[in-house]
Amino acid sequence: MTTPIKNDLFLRACRGEKTERPPVWIMRQAGRYMPEYQEIRKETSFLGLCKTPDLAARATMLPIDMLGVDAAILFSDILIPVEAMGLELRFSEHKGPSFPNPVRTREDLGRLLVPDPVASTGFVAEAIRGINRRLDGRVPLIGFSGAPFTLATYMVEGEISKDFSRVKRMMFSDPELLHDLLDRITDTVIRYLSMQLETGIHAYQIFDTWAGSLAPSHYRTFALPYVRRIVDALRKYGVPSILYVNGSCSLLEEMVSAGTDVISVDWRLSLSKVRERVPESRAIQGNLDPVSLLGRPEILREEVRLILDEMKDRPGYIFNLGHGILPETPVPMAKYLVQLIQSGLSAPMPKG
Amino acid sequence: MTTPIKNDLFLRACRGEKTERPPVWIMRQAGRYMPEYQEIRKETSFLGLCKTPDLAARATMLPIDMLGVDAAILFSDILIPVEAMGLELRFSEHKGPSFPNPVRTREDLGRLLVPDPVASTGFVAEAIRGINRRLDGRVPLIGFSGAPFTLATYMVEGEISKDFSRVKRMMFSDPELLHDLLDRITDTVIRYLSMQLETGIHAYQIFDTWAGSLAPSHYRTFALPYVRRIVDALRKYGVPSILYVNGSCSLLEEMVSAGTDVISVDWRLSLSKVRERVPESRAIQGNLDPVSLLGRPEILREEVRLILDEMKDRPGYIFNLGHGILPETPVPMAKYLVQLIQSGLSAPMPKG
Repeated sequence: MTTPIKNDLFLRACRGEKTERPPVWIMRQAGRYMPEYQEIRKETSFLGLCKTPDLAARATMLPIDMLGVDAAILFSDILIPVEAMGLELRFSEHKGPSFPNPVRTREDLGRLLVPDPVASTGFVAEAIRGINRRLDGRVPLIGFSGAPFTLATYMVEGEISKDFSRVKRMMFSDPELLHDLLDRITDTVIRYLSMQLETGIHAYQIFDTWAGSLAPSHYRTFALPYVRRIVDALRKYGVPSILYVNGSCSLLEEMVSAGTDVISVDWRLSLSKVRERVPESRAIQGNLDPVSLLGRPEILREEVRLILDEMKDRPGYIFNLGHGILPETPVPMAKYLVQLIQSGLSAPMPKG
Repeated sequence: MTTPIKNDLFLRACRGEKTERPPVWIMRQAGRYMPEYQEIRKETSFLGLCKTPDLAARATMLPIDMLGVDAAILFSDILIPVEAMGLELRFSEHKGPSFPNPVRTREDLGRLLVPDPVASTGFVAEAIRGINRRLDGRVPLIGFSGAPFTLATYMVEGEISKDFSRVKRMMFSDPELLHDLLDRITDTVIRYLSMQLETGIHAYQIFDTWAGSLAPSHYRTFALPYVRRIVDALRKYGVPSILYVNGSCSLLEEMVSAGTDVISVDWRLSLSKVRERVPESRAIQGNLDPVSLLGRPEILREEVRLILDEMKDRPGYIFNLGHGILPETPVPMAKYLVQLIQSGLSAPMPKG
């Protein structure tokens, strides 16, 4: 079953090794900015795409074929395991994901399952198998899940939130309820990622996207322990793990203590400072501002140069954005970014 | 003209002095959470309130009379000087502020004025005089303005933005245009705050609310120099200055270098770390998570205790939230917060 990986740059960097050049992949690399993705999306809804293994596999392959990134990431959504817990999930083009029946009370919590991932999200396993067939070992495949706190945020808020006041209100008024919710989500995520790992992914990323909205003391209480439990439970698979937090500046030491092999950071802190705070036993991933892909190529090149300078000679470094690529990104700029990293800054600029 | 200030705790803390207890005020302390404010608002729109000196003065006084905070802050909006530059400003209850004709091109910039603050925003001066009459020296009065980068954000985006992609796109595609815009805003803010200072405010706060969305290198280029220019220009007035950034974790050293007397931080970093990074020559303001006012009083007390412990014996400390108070805050909880600080944690809990 295990096809050897030809381009293993990403996996070596995850393990903290010194690589010839940094590997590069892009969060949301298969996404709305690509006309070819829009073509696939014409066949179904966003959720339909996630649940149709053949389409999900085709979407996953787009940035491999078109940008030449050094890793593939499963096309899916962080909220897929939450829907499997029995919470109706909707996506709208403009407002993003929503849960029409959010979790606000102990009764709401009582209705949530810890689902059997094979029965409820078998389409993910099937997509992973399909992607690996298509990849045929060209690059490694990254699996992922949302982290418990971030998933709880969506489940309690019910929709995209500006200040996370509902989930935090639960934290400040009924912390036991929030802990019980986080506990159930954690059990779900462990099962869900175990399934991904047993099906053949080569690394996994935990997206704690909204944990950066927490004070460090609350991160230590309501986010960190649950991520640590997941990482501990999955260590037996021997597969590299990545922890991403958007707004990670004040949480770096805590993130390191969660135990993942890679610390993935947003653009709001300089990598030279990140280097000082993350021990060399851990790899670092990030952290270009996604908006830089909307500007002039020569400015992008200077931004990339700054990052590469900051990370020069740091073993275990993976180039990525600090957050997902924006839908309005021109494809030639995404290509140029990948080529800049792979060519050591000497790639030709896109025309126009 | 200068009435002596009876409760000068806030001003002494601004100057870095050791105070009997930390002074306390609350960002947006006169706001929608107060029924008495809603009463005043019935008479006019939000913008109408800002522009009617008598109503603005009445709103300013509410938290002084009802909560007993240690400082008053002018009731106004950070966007008032932008409207005076000639950009039509609208407020909607649900979507917040918007500029129907945002600044996107050099032609748009060419239409902006550097207004005479007395002619264009005389209502602010009149409000300040009215507030000082009402205060009669009970507590000091804080004036304020938005910082150039934050104001540019609103002017370029045109409305509340999730990822600030339009203003940052300008940064990455036409940095000269953004600098020229920031330059014009800076001239405006200096004149606008000079007017406030000459009219009788006792301290001023610069709100660079959205500068925390910038990478540190971009903060140093597109935000910091303009704030520094304002602080330098106003130093001659000898009045304490405060710089607030939401998302200040990676910017603290830069904020210190801007030269204000007080560094005001959000809740995402622990004050024990802030203490280590901000020299004792500068006061520190912050940083309770505003959502903690929506929870249980006993949890609020523990949150406040943690902050007071972290800042124990630090000269120059001002208690505040890390961001504006939320409209859904119960007034008894806001009162309780103020009393907790003023009583050294021994205030009686609100019922219910």
